[in-house]
Amino acid sequence: MNRFLRVNMARLSTDIKDTGDEYNLLGGRGLIARMMNEEVDPCCDPLGEANKLIFCTGILAGTPAPTSGRLSVGTKSPLTGGIKEANAGGMFGRRMIDLGFKAIIIEGKPDCDALYILKINENTASFILADNYRGLNNYKLHEELLKEFGDEIVIASIGCAGERCYKNSSIQISDTEGRPSRAAARGGVGAVLGSKGIKAVILEKANNKTRTIYSDYDEFRKANKGYIEGIMKNETSGMAMPAFGTAVLVNPVNSLGALPVNNFSSGSFDMVEAISGEEISRLQSERGGSNGHGCQPGCPIRCSNIYKDQNGQYLTSGFEYETIALNGSNLGISDLDLIAKIDRLCDDLGIDTMETGCTLGVCMEAGIIDFGDGEGALSLIGEMFEDTKFGRVIADGAARCGSHLGVKRIPAVKNQGLAAYDPRSLKGTGVTYATTPMGADHTAGNTIGDPSVSPYEKKGQVELSTGTQVGMATFDSLGMCIFSGFCTADPVNINHLISMMKSRFGGDWDADRLFGLGIETISLEKKFNKAAGFTDKDDTLPEFMYNEPLPPNNNVFDITTEELSSAIPF
Amino acid sequence: MNRFLRVNMARLSTDIKDTGDEYNLLGGRGLIARMMNEEVDPCCDPLGEANKLIFCTGILAGTPAPTSGRLSVGTKSPLTGGIKEANAGGMFGRRMIDLGFKAIIIEGKPDCDALYILKINENTASFILADNYRGLNNYKLHEELLKEFGDEIVIASIGCAGERCYKNSSIQISDTEGRPSRAAARGGVGAVLGSKGIKAVILEKANNKTRTIYSDYDEFRKANKGYIEGIMKNETSGMAMPAFGTAVLVNPVNSLGALPVNNFSSGSFDMVEAISGEEISRLQSERGGSNGHGCQPGCPIRCSNIYKDQNGQYLTSGFEYETIALNGSNLGISDLDLIAKIDRLCDDLGIDTMETGCTLGVCMEAGIIDFGDGEGALSLIGEMFEDTKFGRVIADGAARCGSHLGVKRIPAVKNQGLAAYDPRSLKGTGVTYATTPMGADHTAGNTIGDPSVSPYEKKGQVELSTGTQVGMATFDSLGMCIFSGFCTADPVNINHLISMMKSRFGGDWDADRLFGLGIETISLEKKFNKAAGFTDKDDTLPEFMYNEPLPPNNNVFDITTEELSSAIPF
Repeated sequence: MNRFLRVNMARLSTDIKDTGDEYNLLGGRGLIARMMNEEVDPCCDPLGEANKLIFCTGILAGTPAPTSGRLSVGTKSPLTGGIKEANAGGMFGRRMIDLGFKAIIIEGKPDCDALYILKINENTASFILADNYRGLNNYKLHEELLKEFGDEIVIASIGCAGERCYKNSSIQISDTEGRPSRAAARGGVGAVLGSKGIKAVILEKANNKTRTIYSDYDEFRKANKGYIEGIMKNETSGMAMPAFGTAVLVNPVNSLGALPVNNFSSGSFDMVEAISGEEISRLQSERGGSNGHGCQPGCPIRCSNIYKDQNGQYLTSGFEYETIALNGSNLGISDLDLIAKIDRLCDDLGIDTMETGCTLGVCMEAGIIDFGDGEGALSLIGEMFEDTKFGRVIADGAARCGSHLGVKRIPAVKNQGLAAYDPRSLKGTGVTYATTPMGADHTAGNTIGDPSVSPYEKKGQVELSTGTQVGMATFDSLGMCIFSGFCTADPVNINHLISMMKSRFGGDWDADRLFGLGIETISLEKKFNKAAGFTDKDDTLPEFMYNEPLPPNNNVFDITTEELSSAIPF
Repeated sequence: MNRFLRVNMARLSTDIKDTGDEYNLLGGRGLIARMMNEEVDPCCDPLGEANKLIFCTGILAGTPAPTSGRLSVGTKSPLTGGIKEANAGGMFGRRMIDLGFKAIIIEGKPDCDALYILKINENTASFILADNYRGLNNYKLHEELLKEFGDEIVIASIGCAGERCYKNSSIQISDTEGRPSRAAARGGVGAVLGSKGIKAVILEKANNKTRTIYSDYDEFRKANKGYIEGIMKNETSGMAMPAFGTAVLVNPVNSLGALPVNNFSSGSFDMVEAISGEEISRLQSERGGSNGHGCQPGCPIRCSNIYKDQNGQYLTSGFEYETIALNGSNLGISDLDLIAKIDRLCDDLGIDTMETGCTLGVCMEAGIIDFGDGEGALSLIGEMFEDTKFGRVIADGAARCGSHLGVKRIPAVKNQGLAAYDPRSLKGTGVTYATTPMGADHTAGNTIGDPSVSPYEKKGQVELSTGTQVGMATFDSLGMCIFSGFCTADPVNINHLISMMKSRFGGDWDADRLFGLGIETISLEKKFNKAAGFTDKDDTLPEFMYNEPLPPNNNVFDITTEELSSAIPF
């Protein structure tokens, strides 16, 4: 089932190739790293014809391995200028597997500004002029597409942001209810889809699902069962997340003093209870929303949610910790309904909620609006909807917007906004922000909760980050959700995973071979970025984090450039 | 007299040190390259406290060598992120020499947003709170300063642009009439002065002019006389420039097909006569303006002008080729009075006319206003005066503004706008744009008029650019105007220059030692940029210039990255 579908948007041609077993051990982020190095000029214009956009699934896709249906979207990022893998849940990855495609590779771009729907079934892709969908945002778009193409399709689409090539554009993915609430959010991947003249990629229902072949199916089932038990026994993935969603992190990150508050000027928020996962859970049980909602069928973690408004009407879904902290405490906003509205608007327009939160924080720092001004935040988001001149500036993300506004305190690395953990009080994640080829990205290696090193101490953080980055790159290549990796703190579960690899693919497997997948991935990503012009000078945190102590614990980020340079030494 | 004045804006302290003969052979751009490497962290924030701003004069300053009173302003550029030397005529360099200062080095920055006038005489610098000058633009500011501090002062100042740290901010310098019409224009040096809390640097009249000591004064005078004769015999520097100013270039560059038209989309302008140097000369002889005006007393070239409006009132001065082409043909504008008004407004607000022209061109390409819309151009400049949100975007230059607007054709290298020669039909200058550490900069090595290679052929351009870059870096280090270098095409004049160095400083001098000054300068600049994170990936022209043929000759820029990498191999 290792078929590659290549779509050329200059010639409107398609090509399907069965790659046999050649790509068995490449998937997700690792496959992207390989293909970007082999096929894309690292110096190309990210929005030009030489860039490619790769949708792909992971190494364990097509197996019952828990959460193994993740989608990876890869490209050269218009936000960072480096390699990008944006990872999404939702239905698209699973449907690709059903259709027998390991990768869908979008190449070239139309000469004119034509806009297409790309419709894909097992046998072919077709190009449908999308003029009647131009200018629609994602919620309306998905509704209309489901009407026209039937409600069994699965969609990856852009809103107006992607059409306009905003550097903060996401690709929104159908969730289990057919809504565009899941996102390949970071790095401007939506702008690349837009630059290729594609409004939406539609996957039709598979007529004959592809069957996966195992070296030893019984052994796989056994190991897989053990691994699922490991996930369920883990406190975070088995208990806290199903109960409270990812927003369960709000309280402990605040206690740690690492919650972003008022554009990363404090680590502790006095109205933290109002935006906590516990509060969401309470509120939604009153309103008929839900926690414990899976972004894909069969997920044992089910960290997602459906958030209803005061009238019990659907407002948004996949309302996550990062969105809440960066658009809540980071903006001095404690009104959950307003933050949820921001989430909805971002999904609708097709922009990354995290980058948006960082950018609004920078606008507040510049005095465009005040901290705590929720209506002001909505109004700035409105400028992006309306494509005003300043709206375009906001839509290019925190680093560029902040630079124009003359803001000195800009929370970004490689032009990508920080995730919702202040690195001064969570130093391992800070090392990851600085050194990952992705730009400030928590999913590249978040060290939160690791008991081996105090998050305030500099000692050991480079090693901790390196190990976590390798683990995350491995999971991103397996095509599994990083939340399914918490349980690997227990070696028993690593052994289950090793058994799964062995029983799926055969051959000798151990931990070195397993995590070698992550090492190889990062190494290729670094190679691409180096060829794109990145140097170790780009591996640094914002200057203010080195000299401005973060209340309440008054930590600064004190890991030097030289020390950082020994992270991910592959 | 090699005295250094160091001014610390954090402590409001000053220090004067006589460096003896140690810096005899360092000056201007070369001195800046040395000091920036020795004293400034290449990774620092250009607008932060670790950056420095250096005013200095050249190696031959203090001698009667023609045009040897140039001012070099050095810093880490907020526009490019690399090293920057911005060179200016006017009275400031000469006055520094009279006061006995080879360099004035501004360090640190105030904690608060205090704004000062820095007043300097032979013995000290004093700090005068400038709250009453805050928000003034340069013309009004100079008027007021002359009133308060007497009409013999010489000024380097910023307008509102520099106060607001716009990345396109210039430092404006007193001309011979006490007007702020000369500029250290490029790279945002005005933003750095603003970040240091300095509204203006005032040089008082010298009580005792410093005397220069010669190894052999008679020999110097003889060689100098020969060199001046060389300048005067040269067709360009001795005849065309005094008669028509630098705008004498408009017609020949148009004939070459390298004049920027409509955002670098053609090399030939159908209304070229209306914006030519000849037309300025005709118009100004009617109106009582003048060509043949020197930016410094004693200049034999006198390429500057005074431009009067229809009513015979002073409008602007130093109205140059680059300004005219980039804000005229490049915008589809043929109304000289309107272009002159743009020049005046830029000098007043304190922004680089060249970067402004490139940025307005990009705005026109994006459809914000139409090509040819002069009133629209004035209105966009008005947005910078008013500090609107979009005004800030324009004020950050062509690359950043164009990126926000989603423009694909952005004429910039290292985030600095191109000068007014399309590199597709002047390939040697294109090599310079791509490879000089300065960002797209014609003064770093303009190959126009060189008879040895056709400007359309790729062969030989890398070598030609390299030689020209070395020559320019040498003149920028001597502290002489690059126009005084045209005559070095004749080896007799190089020998005069060698004799001047020998008779001034003693020792053995030959062409290798002379131009070794330029090589050493470029080598240090490259070292700084490399440490700041630049790689050879940054040494490239805008993508469209490689694949979009330039009418009317339909040349593309076809010098490859690999070929470019062999330029300035020091």
